[in-house]
Amino acid sequence: MDLKGYNSKIASDVNAALARELAVGEQKTLREAMMYLPMSGGKRMRPMLALLVADAISGSGRRAMPLGLALEIIHNFTLVHDDIMDKDDFRRGVPTVHKKWDEPTAINAGDALFARAIEVLSTLDAPQPVFREVVHDVACMVRQIGEGQQWDMEFEKRRDVTEAEYIKMIERKTALMFMTGAKGGALIGGGTEEQASAMWEYGKNLGIGFQIHDDWLNLKGDPKEFQKPIGGDLLRGKKTIIIIHAFANLPKKELAHVKKVFGKEKASKTMLNAAIKALGPSLEYAQGKARAHADRAVELLKVLPENEYKAILKDLAIYAVERRH
Amino acid sequence: MDLKGYNSKIASDVNAALARELAVGEQKTLREAMMYLPMSGGKRMRPMLALLVADAISGSGRRAMPLGLALEIIHNFTLVHDDIMDKDDFRRGVPTVHKKWDEPTAINAGDALFARAIEVLSTLDAPQPVFREVVHDVACMVRQIGEGQQWDMEFEKRRDVTEAEYIKMIERKTALMFMTGAKGGALIGGGTEEQASAMWEYGKNLGIGFQIHDDWLNLKGDPKEFQKPIGGDLLRGKKTIIIIHAFANLPKKELAHVKKVFGKEKASKTMLNAAIKALGPSLEYAQGKARAHADRAVELLKVLPENEYKAILKDLAIYAVERRH
Repeated sequence: MDLKGYNSKIASDVNAALARELAVGEQKTLREAMMYLPMSGGKRMRPMLALLVADAISGSGRRAMPLGLALEIIHNFTLVHDDIMDKDDFRRGVPTVHKKWDEPTAINAGDALFARAIEVLSTLDAPQPVFREVVHDVACMVRQIGEGQQWDMEFEKRRDVTEAEYIKMIERKTALMFMTGAKGGALIGGGTEEQASAMWEYGKNLGIGFQIHDDWLNLKGDPKEFQKPIGGDLLRGKKTIIIIHAFANLPKKELAHVKKVFGKEKASKTMLNAAIKALGPSLEYAQGKARAHADRAVELLKVLPENEYKAILKDLAIYAVERRH
Repeated sequence: MDLKGYNSKIASDVNAALARELAVGEQKTLREAMMYLPMSGGKRMRPMLALLVADAISGSGRRAMPLGLALEIIHNFTLVHDDIMDKDDFRRGVPTVHKKWDEPTAINAGDALFARAIEVLSTLDAPQPVFREVVHDVACMVRQIGEGQQWDMEFEKRRDVTEAEYIKMIERKTALMFMTGAKGGALIGGGTEEQASAMWEYGKNLGIGFQIHDDWLNLKGDPKEFQKPIGGDLLRGKKTIIIIHAFANLPKKELAHVKKVFGKEKASKTMLNAAIKALGPSLEYAQGKARAHADRAVELLKVLPENEYKAILKDLAIYAVERRH
């Protein structure tokens, strides 16, 4: 099986399980608000990673499903709350939960999704120490994702964000779910401590590469394939690795093009295109960084036995930094 | 030891443990926003109940501490989020988290508190089946508290709320934490299924009695002792059991006094006092209900061995419906 085949099998299993696991409770509004975003799509990369690692270790992907589902539900819970915090009106082409209902309902639905994720996780079939560690890791992950989100909000108000701070922020906001999924998959699959810790590092490099490539796609993606408006991050003044590099390294004349549109939501298409062109060296720098993280992720796979799942994990690391959407 | 002595010992242990368990993470704003409400006070009734039941079963109250702490942290998380949803500016005499910081930070701090509660719970020293059941119950509780909150918000917009709907709502919003704490304490203490299930029912009756008495105190409490403004629920148009009873049973002339101030935040003190006087029979009805729940709670204690902790559990049920603040 290849990455695409494995992903589509898992995605279909995950979609069916989510439809079942989220249709709970007696409160109609809350139930509908909980199901809305998780059922509106998504690549299901987080559950896939947990299952893939458990499969690579011992062919026990199915046993990692409660962890995979918990991560996917938590991913959606964080999106519901982030959209309120960031005042975003649309996601995946549909109105966000707080727009379709209201902010109180969206706060409540996010909380209930997080709770439901832990309920699903509590069905995990694993020995006590593994069960305990996975529950702990998932909870710790959510708290640290909150730290990443808080930094993200604070960075918007600061001018002097460094690349190290940016990396730490995306490690929390994006990579931590991959780290927790990959390490948890290894533990559930009965892997050694060395394997679990290598998978944690694999998840970190995969996640950081994935996010840097996302920042790159936001400027260089094909508008037909990338689901968000091209240049959106730039116009909103987001301090991505590309912008941090540009402000530190671009010649004054080139940087002027960037400054003209940075944080200016109303900038013209022509000005935006000039800025993206000027950002060339910084885009290249970011691409190099993303690629290096993917390479490091591949290297970390050496602790796993040779099998088709290990090959898919390798393809996944490359896909994360080469995908077009 | 009596209720007061037990409570003050537990409260001091809980306060010390909270100060330790919440001083975590690298993100200063998030850490401060997380600690703010939990460290601003509270009766610590939820942790006390979990420990008290474990003590009554087998003298193992200390082992229930991770559950007690998790419940207290979750209680505070729900208050932080409820205050955003309900647009409340003050709690325990100090500005609410979203007023002291902002709504995004308060959403984030609530999420992080919930996550931290599960982290703390993951340290519970209990056999696998008990550990799994307690984690499940706590998560299920949070989701169902969300259902209660959603109903509470929906009831504000409806005229035809029944007493049964009100009871179901407060069972979710208030009683469920007592139910989960009492049942969890029994399981952690090594109690039988019969004991665990009786303690679940004890918690339900304790919690419902506690909330009905809270509604009663909101109208009849001593302004010097009760921490919220007297009549606040009435002026805000909250459909408590007292109001539901009044609308269904008071003579037209008496009801007119109530209608004049119900949902009228600017009503005069004189009008408010006339309404509270008119509500006499409904206040009495509510007090009778609260007392019946307390009596039922006491009855349920018969599954426990005779000891000083059982006596305190009895006093707690009475205290819940006789306290002055």
